[in-house]
Amino acid sequence: MIDFQTDPGRYRHWRLSFDGPVATLTMDVDPEASLFEGCELKLNSYDLGVDIELADAVQRLRFEHPEVRCVVLRSGKEGVFCAGANIRMLAKASHGHKVNFCKFTNETRLAIEDACANSGQHWLAAISGSAAGGGYELAMAADHIMLIDDRRSGVALPEMPLLGVLPGTGGLTRLTDKRMVRRDRADVFCSTEEGVRGRRAVEWRLVDEIVPPSAWEAKLRERALALCARSDRPIGETGIALAPLQRELLSGGVTYSHVRVTFDRAGRRAELTVLGPGRASGLDWALLLARELDDAILHLRLNEPTLGLIVLRSEGDAAAVLAVDALLDAQKDDWLVWEVRLLWKRVLKRIDMTSRSLIALIEPGSCFAGTLAELLFAADRSVMFAGTRAGDNGAPARIHLSALNFGAYPMGNGLTRLATRFLGEPDSFAQARARVGEALAAEDADELGLVTAAYDETDWDDDVRLMLEERASFSADALTAMEANLRFAGPETMETRIFGRLTAWQNWVFQRPSAVGEEGSLKRYGSGLRPNYDTQRV
Amino acid sequence: MIDFQTDPGRYRHWRLSFDGPVATLTMDVDPEASLFEGCELKLNSYDLGVDIELADAVQRLRFEHPEVRCVVLRSGKEGVFCAGANIRMLAKASHGHKVNFCKFTNETRLAIEDACANSGQHWLAAISGSAAGGGYELAMAADHIMLIDDRRSGVALPEMPLLGVLPGTGGLTRLTDKRMVRRDRADVFCSTEEGVRGRRAVEWRLVDEIVPPSAWEAKLRERALALCARSDRPIGETGIALAPLQRELLSGGVTYSHVRVTFDRAGRRAELTVLGPGRASGLDWALLLARELDDAILHLRLNEPTLGLIVLRSEGDAAAVLAVDALLDAQKDDWLVWEVRLLWKRVLKRIDMTSRSLIALIEPGSCFAGTLAELLFAADRSVMFAGTRAGDNGAPARIHLSALNFGAYPMGNGLTRLATRFLGEPDSFAQARARVGEALAAEDADELGLVTAAYDETDWDDDVRLMLEERASFSADALTAMEANLRFAGPETMETRIFGRLTAWQNWVFQRPSAVGEEGSLKRYGSGLRPNYDTQRV
Repeated sequence: MIDFQTDPGRYRHWRLSFDGPVATLTMDVDPEASLFEGCELKLNSYDLGVDIELADAVQRLRFEHPEVRCVVLRSGKEGVFCAGANIRMLAKASHGHKVNFCKFTNETRLAIEDACANSGQHWLAAISGSAAGGGYELAMAADHIMLIDDRRSGVALPEMPLLGVLPGTGGLTRLTDKRMVRRDRADVFCSTEEGVRGRRAVEWRLVDEIVPPSAWEAKLRERALALCARSDRPIGETGIALAPLQRELLSGGVTYSHVRVTFDRAGRRAELTVLGPGRASGLDWALLLARELDDAILHLRLNEPTLGLIVLRSEGDAAAVLAVDALLDAQKDDWLVWEVRLLWKRVLKRIDMTSRSLIALIEPGSCFAGTLAELLFAADRSVMFAGTRAGDNGAPARIHLSALNFGAYPMGNGLTRLATRFLGEPDSFAQARARVGEALAAEDADELGLVTAAYDETDWDDDVRLMLEERASFSADALTAMEANLRFAGPETMETRIFGRLTAWQNWVFQRPSAVGEEGSLKRYGSGLRPNYDTQRV
Repeated sequence: MIDFQTDPGRYRHWRLSFDGPVATLTMDVDPEASLFEGCELKLNSYDLGVDIELADAVQRLRFEHPEVRCVVLRSGKEGVFCAGANIRMLAKASHGHKVNFCKFTNETRLAIEDACANSGQHWLAAISGSAAGGGYELAMAADHIMLIDDRRSGVALPEMPLLGVLPGTGGLTRLTDKRMVRRDRADVFCSTEEGVRGRRAVEWRLVDEIVPPSAWEAKLRERALALCARSDRPIGETGIALAPLQRELLSGGVTYSHVRVTFDRAGRRAELTVLGPGRASGLDWALLLARELDDAILHLRLNEPTLGLIVLRSEGDAAAVLAVDALLDAQKDDWLVWEVRLLWKRVLKRIDMTSRSLIALIEPGSCFAGTLAELLFAADRSVMFAGTRAGDNGAPARIHLSALNFGAYPMGNGLTRLATRFLGEPDSFAQARARVGEALAAEDADELGLVTAAYDETDWDDDVRLMLEERASFSADALTAMEANLRFAGPETMETRIFGRLTAWQNWVFQRPSAVGEEGSLKRYGSGLRPNYDTQRV
């Protein structure tokens, strides 16, 4: 099992240190501590385990360290910044692991950029030694890249010439769309194993500045303080500790304090239920649920690949959820409230990007309100129970919208889920907005276009069962590809291009004989034999 | 050999008829006339040969029929509009053929939309019978979709449930981004083999209107005339005939009147030279060269898959090219001049989308000016000869920009190639614009960022040779994927999404065991056996 929970006390690959507003995150990968047996993580090369620690550090820096305004990213090894993803790991990993590895590392780099853009926590990549492949891609996630000008250090994306694969952790997209490198220079750069160093690296906008070794530490300090000065992080606040999640792994599921996942292996699905806030929980609940939901989704992605469908349910008091939403809305200038909102934004994006069919069932007793209603709009389909079952004296299911559905949680495309949903129906968008705060019964929700369908007791059991069974009968690959297209209408951003164009092409390459065949580049890497490339263009 | 040249007299699958401003294009596929032996093209299902005729019709309608303002697309078969791409053909075709087939059919549908948007030639899809898969995708390229409401006729995208592949000819993208269908409805629609008909098809925006059978022909006529009324096609003009291209197919290349292609099989490259206008050719030259270049590129794509690199050269008089550009600029209100410009736009986009490395060599005697200079900006790299060779009394190479480089030929992303090139350098864009009309020597072109590098006689032969040899040594797949990412910086449009996200995912699916393995859906289609799907999500 791959566990996404960790903490700095358990890190094998990173060191965090603090000096007032400047944190330093030092990459010092333990070569012996790979997730894959027999893979030696030399030269700060990484596998998913290394990135899980990085993601944890990114998260803790935001919640536990409101005082940190600049994070300096550097290497603890002499002569190398980071050699990128470990090639032997890529050669050994299944296709699914490779795809999920790239997805998670991409999400982590986007989380770094989110910290820079929205939390006033600016990252500074300090490259001394070689930053190759994923190493340079990691640096590109930072606000500012410094390169030591020592005639040895440089940046490179050697994947294509060296390995016949892509720089798939956003590298090509950040070259063209973040750093806006001229395309022919990008072509030369990506075809050059040894990469670029010195003045040319600045001229081509691959790094922001080069610094002679004699001035390195002083300039680094100067840049870090300059980034601190640009920050709007709060003054005098104390962070909160992200305590270990209460998680119970069972053979038939996994349970947290506010998330319950049960596995239906025969039906090839997971049933995921989120629980509303209890009394007096409020912001704590919102933070905890987001963390638990994130962990549950990652657990399903990596550890349960045959559960192709996630059924989303909720249980609880909608009014209590709306009260938390009111707090998240009214107190958004509070740094911690703001961080909780940003975390929800990222978790919801993680759900959008999860290659499982998502079907939400809105039943009596559910609390799909405000923030939790985003799950309905993230789902491929949402089906609502109309009325109540015979003999049930409780209230029928209701959906509630809150102000947070209209701006707090943009998707990767920059639009809210409702705006994306109603791209072709601006009136429907306005009509939904006019109903904020109302308890919407199934008929209303259907009429407003907020759900895919509403069934009453007569049809519910059969229709839902057939829908879930049918979904499980389809080709998992075709569903993956279809959902990757249908979920992201509207504008494209660097983020959606990374997961759309770049990732899809990388996944294609990761299937091709030239890369993964017996004589392919990944199989033959390090063997002394040259790979045998298919010479046909497609 | 697959030949992209045809004419209405040779069509096997389509009939063109004319009634004043309304043309009718009737699809009536000859089941016996597939490009693939043993494939019966039943129910108006199609292969590349059918689409080559369609592309020819689209083109001729624009050049030969300035009077046509509306094109009615309908079926000549009872009970079926079009059943989409032929599945047996997909099962038999190589991966490369499938990819190129989808690319070409996508380009043809985009050419239909270009006619609607830019030539005042509005397409009207009249669906009587079933429009399934590629059949509905074809209809979606039209301005307006009418569906007969006869309880049998309907639209469907059954690829995912029926075949475990995607509707890969723009279907998913046009659903979300052109017709802006709500995502959960799109999900239901794409999961439903039998599709949608009647009122629901309108409610879900899958078609624009339904018409009862009794009113069908009258309503069709009414809509066609309404579309004619919206058109800005010229009045009283006479079309020009697109004469057969003068093409000579040789063992070592292919020659046209203004394009010369030679194959270097050992070097895995094609050398493609465009020839400037002779005396008194002007617009004819521009039209002919565009058609020849288009044919040459398509020939290389489909018939020469092992030539992974296209070396672009030109020969001729730059002043004569600039004179044609001046005409194309000054007389753009002339319908034929406008059509020639639009054709060049499409041909240049076809080059952008061609999965071959493109390297332009700018040597003495070349005429990369204005429209032809676009080839330099479409190339992955452009290298310029500085000065002349010893003993050569001619002039050194020059590049000329014209007004047409700054708006006439947008890429799929909606920007000009120069604007895309200089996304990160707005100053460079302005500086280039200030030099329109000047003869730019290698040093100037290099300084302005218009070329990748300039070499003088000392270095040229070795540096060019090494560059071409190195390119040929890389993984063809990795180059394909890298170029598909680096060429399209900046904004995304429906068009770039089709070729980026949708196509890349379709190509991935077309590699997966669930689709193309021995027990996959394409192999087992029609066998009576159910496909064996991999149940793991990636």
